[in-house]
Amino acid sequence: MPTSDKVAPQLLELKTRLTEINDIESAAALLSWDQATYMPPGGAPARGRQLATLNQIAHTKLTDGYLGELLENLHPYETQLPPEHPDASLIRVTRRNYQRAVQIPARLMAVFSHHRANSYVAWAAARANHDFAGVQPYLEKTLELSRDLAACFPDHAHLADPLIDAADPGMTVTTVRSLFSQLRQRLVPWVEAIAAQPLADTGCLHQSYPVDQQLAFSHKVLSHLGYDLHRGRQDQTLHPFMTKFSLGDVRITTRVQSHNLSEALFSTIHEMGHALYEQGITADFEGTPLAEGASSGVHESQSRLWENLVGRSRPFWEFFYPQLQTIFPQQLGAVSLETFYRAINQVRRSLIRTDADEVTYNLHVMIRFDLEVALLEGSLAVSDLPAAWNERYRTDLGLVPETDQEGILQDVHWYCGTIGGMFQGYTLGNLMSAQFFEALLTAHPEVPAQMQQGDFQPIREWLRLQIHQHGCTYRPLELVEHVTGTSLSIEPFLRYLQQKYGELYAI
Amino acid sequence: MPTSDKVAPQLLELKTRLTEINDIESAAALLSWDQATYMPPGGAPARGRQLATLNQIAHTKLTDGYLGELLENLHPYETQLPPEHPDASLIRVTRRNYQRAVQIPARLMAVFSHHRANSYVAWAAARANHDFAGVQPYLEKTLELSRDLAACFPDHAHLADPLIDAADPGMTVTTVRSLFSQLRQRLVPWVEAIAAQPLADTGCLHQSYPVDQQLAFSHKVLSHLGYDLHRGRQDQTLHPFMTKFSLGDVRITTRVQSHNLSEALFSTIHEMGHALYEQGITADFEGTPLAEGASSGVHESQSRLWENLVGRSRPFWEFFYPQLQTIFPQQLGAVSLETFYRAINQVRRSLIRTDADEVTYNLHVMIRFDLEVALLEGSLAVSDLPAAWNERYRTDLGLVPETDQEGILQDVHWYCGTIGGMFQGYTLGNLMSAQFFEALLTAHPEVPAQMQQGDFQPIREWLRLQIHQHGCTYRPLELVEHVTGTSLSIEPFLRYLQQKYGELYAI
Repeated sequence: MPTSDKVAPQLLELKTRLTEINDIESAAALLSWDQATYMPPGGAPARGRQLATLNQIAHTKLTDGYLGELLENLHPYETQLPPEHPDASLIRVTRRNYQRAVQIPARLMAVFSHHRANSYVAWAAARANHDFAGVQPYLEKTLELSRDLAACFPDHAHLADPLIDAADPGMTVTTVRSLFSQLRQRLVPWVEAIAAQPLADTGCLHQSYPVDQQLAFSHKVLSHLGYDLHRGRQDQTLHPFMTKFSLGDVRITTRVQSHNLSEALFSTIHEMGHALYEQGITADFEGTPLAEGASSGVHESQSRLWENLVGRSRPFWEFFYPQLQTIFPQQLGAVSLETFYRAINQVRRSLIRTDADEVTYNLHVMIRFDLEVALLEGSLAVSDLPAAWNERYRTDLGLVPETDQEGILQDVHWYCGTIGGMFQGYTLGNLMSAQFFEALLTAHPEVPAQMQQGDFQPIREWLRLQIHQHGCTYRPLELVEHVTGTSLSIEPFLRYLQQKYGELYAI
Repeated sequence: MPTSDKVAPQLLELKTRLTEINDIESAAALLSWDQATYMPPGGAPARGRQLATLNQIAHTKLTDGYLGELLENLHPYETQLPPEHPDASLIRVTRRNYQRAVQIPARLMAVFSHHRANSYVAWAAARANHDFAGVQPYLEKTLELSRDLAACFPDHAHLADPLIDAADPGMTVTTVRSLFSQLRQRLVPWVEAIAAQPLADTGCLHQSYPVDQQLAFSHKVLSHLGYDLHRGRQDQTLHPFMTKFSLGDVRITTRVQSHNLSEALFSTIHEMGHALYEQGITADFEGTPLAEGASSGVHESQSRLWENLVGRSRPFWEFFYPQLQTIFPQQLGAVSLETFYRAINQVRRSLIRTDADEVTYNLHVMIRFDLEVALLEGSLAVSDLPAAWNERYRTDLGLVPETDQEGILQDVHWYCGTIGGMFQGYTLGNLMSAQFFEALLTAHPEVPAQMQQGDFQPIREWLRLQIHQHGCTYRPLELVEHVTGTSLSIEPFLRYLQQKYGELYAI
């Protein structure tokens, strides 16, 4: 459909403004990446200020009233188009971003941003000292500000809804709770049954693995799986992440530990999953808000699909294990593929979310989700949080943290973000990863055999066509339906676990 | 002097606005640094756009009329203060920047910036093909735009003056020409006399020197000389440079060649000289336009002082050579200090400026300066430039380039900048380096003996107190007078050459 003489210039103006905002946000992303990778310590104070300046300029430009006028003027054009048309999507997604941004007072943004920085520092100290009391007042303030933030959006059924919606558009406390309570009910006894079995031996993963050789192998895997190093790179950081400065520059970072092979290996594959998503977005969306993942959950579905459903599968290692043995002959030469496969798929109830296996992982996430909703509702006080945390670990995982460091202080999220909306994406992502992968296998049952032969292109290409290229044209629940033909469900994930771990643990 | 109730808020507003501009410019500098160091090739198109966006936002903020009003309102306060008072300096330097910026139409800025990017690409291709004709139309356009730019400043005696003034405030064609013509008169016969002598043997520098070991030695030198690696770092690039993101983050880059020891060694010391200047600026100036070097020439004086007057001196190597021999025992174990010293101080007439020794270097620069002034004046056409270049190389250096690559196409400056103002700073810097160093030796005759003992702190500290800490409070010519008690002159530089090379070449 050709755009009219009146629409075309306004659409162009919209795109020009959005690209400018995107340029500023991309520059801020580079400042953060540099801060985590190469910045000397002396650069820290000015870097914080520079980031605040760029974020503030981007926010001012996003909330410019003229942008609102353009969106209003473009509304009739938008309604003529099918909703998945790129112009309609662009106008719709921009309106969503614009409306969110204008509803939050600039003063609240500034106060929150300042508070987050202080809270982060207080958390780092409290965590080192196993001392929740030190950070409790900050967390109380975070809760208050999170409520203020949620209150900027009056049309919600539950206070957590606007916070969840910011990360996972279209999701609410009700939808998430319903999925999670079913999942928990099925997982807890299942995990208990596995815990009754003998532990798989992970000794082979904890030998001495020189950093350079680990990086060399991870580069081999990256380029073999199709991460485009012409449009990306990998650096080392304290906490691995993926970041994008343009569709032509999507970077990942990793953390390498010399006595833990799985640390760098699986975090690399995980971040690559995020990166393949961004690298697969259609080039036409460059510089616009459509060139983003659909949600926190959908993004996580891509990283977890590659990390777990592909990267911890037997066919994957049937292809890659001989190469790994060649790089580490002393460490792995005498270790069988089956021993290695069982080691990387060890299921063990543990206290730390980021170390959890794919069976127990979601129990950690659901504990956090329930607690943050309870905090927002006011049914749980911040001062009672450590006890509530420990109690849930006892009931769900059969373990109680000995210190706050391995309990309530372990995750950074609440201490540098909001309370609410921070955790559900992880489990939604796990559920989606299984649902997507099941759809892929139904359409292409030859995929496991192809993996065994080292051919991962069909997986990547299917994900690109079905999911990646669309950026955030579809909302997460729409996307799941669009790709799998059914609504989001816990069943594919449970079927996947049953098939894989039923075999491994004979349950 | 306490500021009045009326002045204080305006001064604060000025500083806030300047810090915001500085934050944006620093972000742009990081984007450029990343482009030269780590950016994957796919990031290039968006990076160009992101840089343009940031530069344009900074320019808009700098030319904001309210900034002009603030400067006007602060004028009475400024006149009450001594000119070197930080507030007076800040207001004066900001006014200079503001007035320059508002005099250039935004459209000309945009056209020029776009043209420069195209011209750079055309130059890179033309240079590879030794083909001046390919880039000639671009250079003609650059000349036209350079004239337009100069014409934005109507109060000049010569069209090149505003362009020179942009890089070296207070300098004009007349002052530079006068210094340069004296210098050339003395240098040309002197270089001829040296050229009649046998060449020093540089064979020891051109053995196999592993890159990692070169970098290890350069880090040793950097930290020993006082480059603060807590507030800086070194990375590898195609062309070495120094860049600053804040006074706490001043980085350098280097290029390492495995068969040329002097490449990384001296470019590291050179860039460190630039970096020590920035690291030495008083912390009170952080985020303001005072936290800059005084000029292109003064900046170059610092890099050349460390590279040549310190880094190529006998006392320097009396201290460092044994350490270098320890790192490279196979390559240098049997090479005497004297042989090494003569190798790093070889004088040889050559065609490439960046490879030139410190005696012939300025002849290269002065050729370029004269040619760019002639182009601006219209006494030389762009089409006649290669012939004029070659002719000057014949008369001044006794050599004629065989191809445009080692002639008119060798330097990037005219192809990505202006014609005019691009070259004088190099020679001004060399002159100042000798004048500063002579003043230092007069005040502290013990400096060479201290260097011999590995004590470089007195040099660094003297430079910091005399020059670095002031940022751009003083204009270059004022600074020279302030530090040395005399006006800028060619004599200290010639005395330095005579003393060092008179001994080496017995002339």
